[in-house]
Amino acid sequence: MSTAAAVLERCARLGEVSEEPGRLVRRYATPAMREANDLVSGWMEAAGLAVSEDAAGNLVGRRAGVERALVLGSHLDTVIDAGRYDGPLGVLAAIALVERLGDTQLPFAVEVVGFADEEGVRYPTAFLGSSAMAGRFAPAWLDLTDADGVTMADALRGFGGDPEAVATAARPAGELLAYCEVHIEQGPVLERRGAPVGVVTAISGQTHAELAFRGEAGHAGTVPMDVRHDALGAAAEWIVAAEALARARPGLVATVGRLAVEPGARNVIPGVAKLTLDVRHGSDAIRREAIADLRAEAQRVAAARGVGLAWDARGETAAVPTAPELCERLADAVAATGLPVERLPSGAGHDGVAMAAVAPVAMLFVRCAGGISHNPAESVAEEDVAVALDVLERFVRELA
Amino acid sequence: MSTAAAVLERCARLGEVSEEPGRLVRRYATPAMREANDLVSGWMEAAGLAVSEDAAGNLVGRRAGVERALVLGSHLDTVIDAGRYDGPLGVLAAIALVERLGDTQLPFAVEVVGFADEEGVRYPTAFLGSSAMAGRFAPAWLDLTDADGVTMADALRGFGGDPEAVATAARPAGELLAYCEVHIEQGPVLERRGAPVGVVTAISGQTHAELAFRGEAGHAGTVPMDVRHDALGAAAEWIVAAEALARARPGLVATVGRLAVEPGARNVIPGVAKLTLDVRHGSDAIRREAIADLRAEAQRVAAARGVGLAWDARGETAAVPTAPELCERLADAVAATGLPVERLPSGAGHDGVAMAAVAPVAMLFVRCAGGISHNPAESVAEEDVAVALDVLERFVRELA
Repeated sequence: MSTAAAVLERCARLGEVSEEPGRLVRRYATPAMREANDLVSGWMEAAGLAVSEDAAGNLVGRRAGVERALVLGSHLDTVIDAGRYDGPLGVLAAIALVERLGDTQLPFAVEVVGFADEEGVRYPTAFLGSSAMAGRFAPAWLDLTDADGVTMADALRGFGGDPEAVATAARPAGELLAYCEVHIEQGPVLERRGAPVGVVTAISGQTHAELAFRGEAGHAGTVPMDVRHDALGAAAEWIVAAEALARARPGLVATVGRLAVEPGARNVIPGVAKLTLDVRHGSDAIRREAIADLRAEAQRVAAARGVGLAWDARGETAAVPTAPELCERLADAVAATGLPVERLPSGAGHDGVAMAAVAPVAMLFVRCAGGISHNPAESVAEEDVAVALDVLERFVRELA
Repeated sequence: MSTAAAVLERCARLGEVSEEPGRLVRRYATPAMREANDLVSGWMEAAGLAVSEDAAGNLVGRRAGVERALVLGSHLDTVIDAGRYDGPLGVLAAIALVERLGDTQLPFAVEVVGFADEEGVRYPTAFLGSSAMAGRFAPAWLDLTDADGVTMADALRGFGGDPEAVATAARPAGELLAYCEVHIEQGPVLERRGAPVGVVTAISGQTHAELAFRGEAGHAGTVPMDVRHDALGAAAEWIVAAEALARARPGLVATVGRLAVEPGARNVIPGVAKLTLDVRHGSDAIRREAIADLRAEAQRVAAARGVGLAWDARGETAAVPTAPELCERLADAVAATGLPVERLPSGAGHDGVAMAAVAPVAMLFVRCAGGISHNPAESVAEEDVAVALDVLERFVRELA
């Protein structure tokens, strides 16, 4: 069996470890995560790694070497009704790589990490595991409760972690050589380009906002078109403009995912339209400029229609560029396999966002069928995983 | 006190007759409607009218005359949390007119009608009272149940009507000379034109439809703009086009009152957008042509975006033109008061829709503050009611 086939077999095996029968759910610090860590721990040991678990529950398999460590990995938790590749593929590919390295001498240690929580499903946080390793774990998070009222501190204690010692999971700056993650793309770009893998240029920054257009409700039959102040008409005009504005900026994505109309009756002109906005780009400057333009356009539309506008900024996260030097090495490794080098940003967040605080970050995306993720239909091809393993191996050997 | 002031005082008095304390609700065949009919019946008798109630619960006050009758009136039921003028103003203005006529000899009888149900709040019907008088009452309606499970037949029996004899409420064709109704406009047109009253050209026909655009849900971060099939983007583009299309056709109104997005999460591209469409115009030909254009535009938008479209026609009602000859007489009566003649369609339905089956119909709209109706804030000015009474009196005397 090829290494790639073996990785996929382990993905399948791990995909059966779930909180629920019939669908894959593996949230932070649950018995299913305990079982997953134990299973992966066995594979790590079989690959010759020295296994430990930090106070936050992250699984770490270390290959001996000089002090600075190259960290490879991803996360082992999942969303609800998940696929089996989002997270685990990166951890199991890293273990397979260590197996391939055999007793090759490297001038650095290699650590394979299975982060305990990236998805943030059980508690309202994300990148919990990598945040702990990056020294960015906020102690107040321990008081957060899940849907059953269980605090994170109690859950972590039950898991075998140590809430009082979470700070010890942090790695001092300078101790880590780099963090490199293999992950499914979760989008359709590589599939459309016909490429098995791609080098991630940045993890996009995000801006979230909630908008409300407030016009004037009225009778659908008795108010002529030219005296209406239709809140939905304003929202629709702005959505069309926002779409055009995003299309005109390469790499920018702008999404209105929710829209609610009040009063919401067939024969009443909408008085209020509320909607959400989600904008992402690998460049913070481009994203912020787009937000300014989107907001100006909303104000223009509202003013032209005699409609009120409330723009409620719901926060933003900065983009995390991957380290240029590491990207070039990863690109060289792709080129060495004979494939064209594809580069793309990651519109979704990843552990690299947190890890960037303590190490230069690189990411390799693997093509996934139909761009589907967070869904049992998530799928990757064995040949693509084989390419990713080859690229990762060349990357690590060249780094040496 | 002026006649207009007296009419408004009676509107206020009748506005206190409600099913609930604190707000005005008067649905078909309720004890509140019984009390309303009894109160108005007293005013009819005081005006010298011979009062009766037909089998459907309509209140009829007849002024003796030769066989053909001019019917004046409106409805006495209300919506929930209603204003005091929508309906009652037309009935009480008609009674006031009869008082003004005194013993003037006319070559026709005059009947003042208070229809028992126009709003269709208690049962899923509208124009119940006028439908009975027009011989269009469907016997199956008697089996409809209200929110408490009470059938219409039982409610009508309890009210003092006779479900078995509803057909006797029907007036033979030819028996009625005309039906003329005074009603508040329920829209802002007269207010904007600075006119106290307006001649209704037609009661608009309506088309209702439900549309669903079906695209492809996807991750708001990972799917580039140029490969999206955003259902809400399609809906928004169509709403903007529909608005422009309606604005380009004088008198046409097109309203999207409801819009729902699925799955409806901030970070998910909408896969489905469902919306309602309500289109009205005084001309059926113009309305149908507009519907064809709106549908073609929806198909164009859907095809251009690779999005599916379901167009579910939910029925239409034909426009009811008012009788041209009566309209001219009403316009002459307005002109005789020294005011400019304003003409406008009625975008809302009225008892004239049913009555048109057995009599030529005319309607006079009275300006209402802010175009507000179906709301306790409904308001008319005494001066405007005075104009309406003068116009109605001239109309009736000239008809003689």
